[in-house]
Amino acid sequence: MPVPGPGYSITIRLEAAPSASAAGELASAVGRVGGVLTAFDVVESHSDRIVVDITCNALSANHAQDIQDALVALPDVRVRKVSDRTFLMHLGGKIEVNSKVALRNRDDLSRAYTPGVARVCQAIAANPEDARRLTIKRNTVAVVTDGSAVLGLGNIGPAAALPVMEGKAALFKKFAGVDAWPVCLDTQDTDEIIRAVELIAPGYGGINLEDIAAPRCFEIEARLREKLDIPVFHDDQHGTAIVVVAALRNALRVVGKEIGDCRIVVCGVGAAGSAIIRLLLKQQPGDVVAVDIGGVVHGGRDDLDPNRQWIAANTNKQGLTGDLHKALVGADVFIGVSAPNLFGADQVATMAERSIVFALANPDPEIDPLEAQKHAAVVATGRSDYPNQINNVLAFPGVFRGLLDAHAHRITDDMLVAAANAVADVVDAEKLNASFIVPSVFDPHVASAVAEAVRAVAVRES
Amino acid sequence: MPVPGPGYSITIRLEAAPSASAAGELASAVGRVGGVLTAFDVVESHSDRIVVDITCNALSANHAQDIQDALVALPDVRVRKVSDRTFLMHLGGKIEVNSKVALRNRDDLSRAYTPGVARVCQAIAANPEDARRLTIKRNTVAVVTDGSAVLGLGNIGPAAALPVMEGKAALFKKFAGVDAWPVCLDTQDTDEIIRAVELIAPGYGGINLEDIAAPRCFEIEARLREKLDIPVFHDDQHGTAIVVVAALRNALRVVGKEIGDCRIVVCGVGAAGSAIIRLLLKQQPGDVVAVDIGGVVHGGRDDLDPNRQWIAANTNKQGLTGDLHKALVGADVFIGVSAPNLFGADQVATMAERSIVFALANPDPEIDPLEAQKHAAVVATGRSDYPNQINNVLAFPGVFRGLLDAHAHRITDDMLVAAANAVADVVDAEKLNASFIVPSVFDPHVASAVAEAVRAVAVRES
Repeated sequence: MPVPGPGYSITIRLEAAPSASAAGELASAVGRVGGVLTAFDVVESHSDRIVVDITCNALSANHAQDIQDALVALPDVRVRKVSDRTFLMHLGGKIEVNSKVALRNRDDLSRAYTPGVARVCQAIAANPEDARRLTIKRNTVAVVTDGSAVLGLGNIGPAAALPVMEGKAALFKKFAGVDAWPVCLDTQDTDEIIRAVELIAPGYGGINLEDIAAPRCFEIEARLREKLDIPVFHDDQHGTAIVVVAALRNALRVVGKEIGDCRIVVCGVGAAGSAIIRLLLKQQPGDVVAVDIGGVVHGGRDDLDPNRQWIAANTNKQGLTGDLHKALVGADVFIGVSAPNLFGADQVATMAERSIVFALANPDPEIDPLEAQKHAAVVATGRSDYPNQINNVLAFPGVFRGLLDAHAHRITDDMLVAAANAVADVVDAEKLNASFIVPSVFDPHVASAVAEAVRAVAVRES
Repeated sequence: MPVPGPGYSITIRLEAAPSASAAGELASAVGRVGGVLTAFDVVESHSDRIVVDITCNALSANHAQDIQDALVALPDVRVRKVSDRTFLMHLGGKIEVNSKVALRNRDDLSRAYTPGVARVCQAIAANPEDARRLTIKRNTVAVVTDGSAVLGLGNIGPAAALPVMEGKAALFKKFAGVDAWPVCLDTQDTDEIIRAVELIAPGYGGINLEDIAAPRCFEIEARLREKLDIPVFHDDQHGTAIVVVAALRNALRVVGKEIGDCRIVVCGVGAAGSAIIRLLLKQQPGDVVAVDIGGVVHGGRDDLDPNRQWIAANTNKQGLTGDLHKALVGADVFIGVSAPNLFGADQVATMAERSIVFALANPDPEIDPLEAQKHAAVVATGRSDYPNQINNVLAFPGVFRGLLDAHAHRITDDMLVAAANAVADVVDAEKLNASFIVPSVFDPHVASAVAEAVRAVAVRES
């Protein structure tokens, strides 16, 4: 049963009679329909009425309306205005561009702009690599989307994707001091996306692809990596893969298993699932079995696209066939990045002893985590209201911090592995347990540890 | 004779003997070779030596070396390090991206990012115009260049243009609170530039084209205005035209002439000259005569591109032919946006009584302003070391502030005229004189006056 959270928080300004019981009646009305009251502020007080702001968390627009209706149904209550705190936070956008240099007088202008800037331009024209030292290219990442696979909302287009990309940019700065800028492209044509990113690349030190649908995202990333001399990272693939592999590393420590002895079922072979499989294969696992909507991915299927053909050729050593439930029998690890409610506790019971279940579909996981933990030794989800949240913010800020600091021209699999190990190792041995396999997203050590790990590999490889 | 300015400012750290006369000898050495000493700081003092930072303005790299050589030639002086203050100011870039919202805890994250952000995305998907309210599109301008005509440096390419675009973005924020972001495109193909801007447009409330060579810039601007539902402004054209027309309006007040009685010679028909001519024609001038490298532009010439053909058809009522010197005879106003040193005081003497000379070629004007003022009543340049600097920063910040505040979908000629009048009217009647026809670039009233004028026209036209 979902609980009202701060993602849907409203403030209702209303007038009520100034009776001693007014506050209690208002609070009770909110509670009766399932709202969670978080603040009660008297804005005005008169002899005949009070004006109060009631702030509460709701589940949905309908639920917010229910709360409002419950309040209006009280005697002598009149609603003046309902504000949605989430919308208020987004008004005018969530990021801004600021000058790092003072522009107080003519001398400042002469250095920051004409005529002084001309010499800086000439230095870069003579030595293009100097752009990584003398311009924003030193610290700037483009967050590029076509709006085709935004959160769980699907293909909502570039303008509607902008609030997510702004949020991502805010996280980049907050967690790693990276200047990130949203690039929402008004096309979903693979060639046009690639060309557009190539054209804007001079101003950036890295490209973070975001919320671009599979399989288009694979070709876009691969071709951009060929064309550009700055790192290209698709967060939905590699950010997720880094954090999953980090979490798995620690979960295996908790259950006392080696990855080389484990059979790992990965359900979902979109952007995230495919990248997770590729990064897992770098760890010499016992076996990986991929499952999609058509069941276990194996070479005998004739419905496989090139991505799935590669997966079939590189996984499933035992040649398993059948559906997800069959694949789970005897498996050590389940990693789901697919769809809600695919199995229950009974299927977890068929897995190996001390099994690990990562049910990452958002907002509703492949299995209710409370069901999974009846038989699994370690359970993780993508949700913030359950322990062990698998959240990309543990990876992408530090990854780009490290790449930018190394002036890296590309990103490699070894850097992804190093980043995963760094995330895992932030959890001290004495803190590690079944409910704490990944650090908190607010742990200030994560980004710097990831950055240093990525930087070290980049410097070694350069 | 050019004077060393802060655009080329160096700091020389050196060791010298700790004699009483050391400071004087060092200062004299700098002065002897024409350096302008601006700071003398003792960094360390020992019994056998002192370490000092000598900061001075120079003319060029060669001149900076001359200063350094003059110092080293002194007995017992050893240079440790030479820092270029302009380069220091540009290190790591001049602008940054900051979050406007707090991200302190889970509640903040839930509202700014997932899951709360999903509702904001859905609102925009349902009503795309909401992007101007709920995202950075509300306050953000792309500063777009292909690096083909950067300052006086010419075609130096997109990476080398970046320091200028960053400076422009810093000015946008400083003078009008606009969030501007550099878009340096790695192509000089007209169709590709247009398509790239179209593709990135969802994230911006306006497009400021910058330092794109003529005649390509005309087609790019015209076609983008057709395609986009946000205003497109080419600063080299319209920013310059606004400030020139504002300055001319005030210069005519100073000399007591009406524009309808004036013959105006415009020398140079690139981006700036063409836009100046078009905006002048909105003011019902007596006549405008355009001059390019081939002399007076008239319908009898067979070397005219489409832009010049339009100019020939709409100017030069008297059918003048010949060169610039001939065009100047009897002219009331000269406006040059062309090349250095095209004429002298003798030609100014042939102009009408109380003539006006705007010699705006940068860094070296069409005529030395000291020569021009021998016969002209009002003289202006693009330089900061002479009165009446014609500087685009008087226009572009306020223009976009007004457009963004009006949620404008396009920019019109009436807005440009309103902006020019607003710039001119910031100069009070009692302050107006031959040496003060435009406000200071640091006058805080300019941008708000321009913004209000543009906004009012935009609202009226919407």
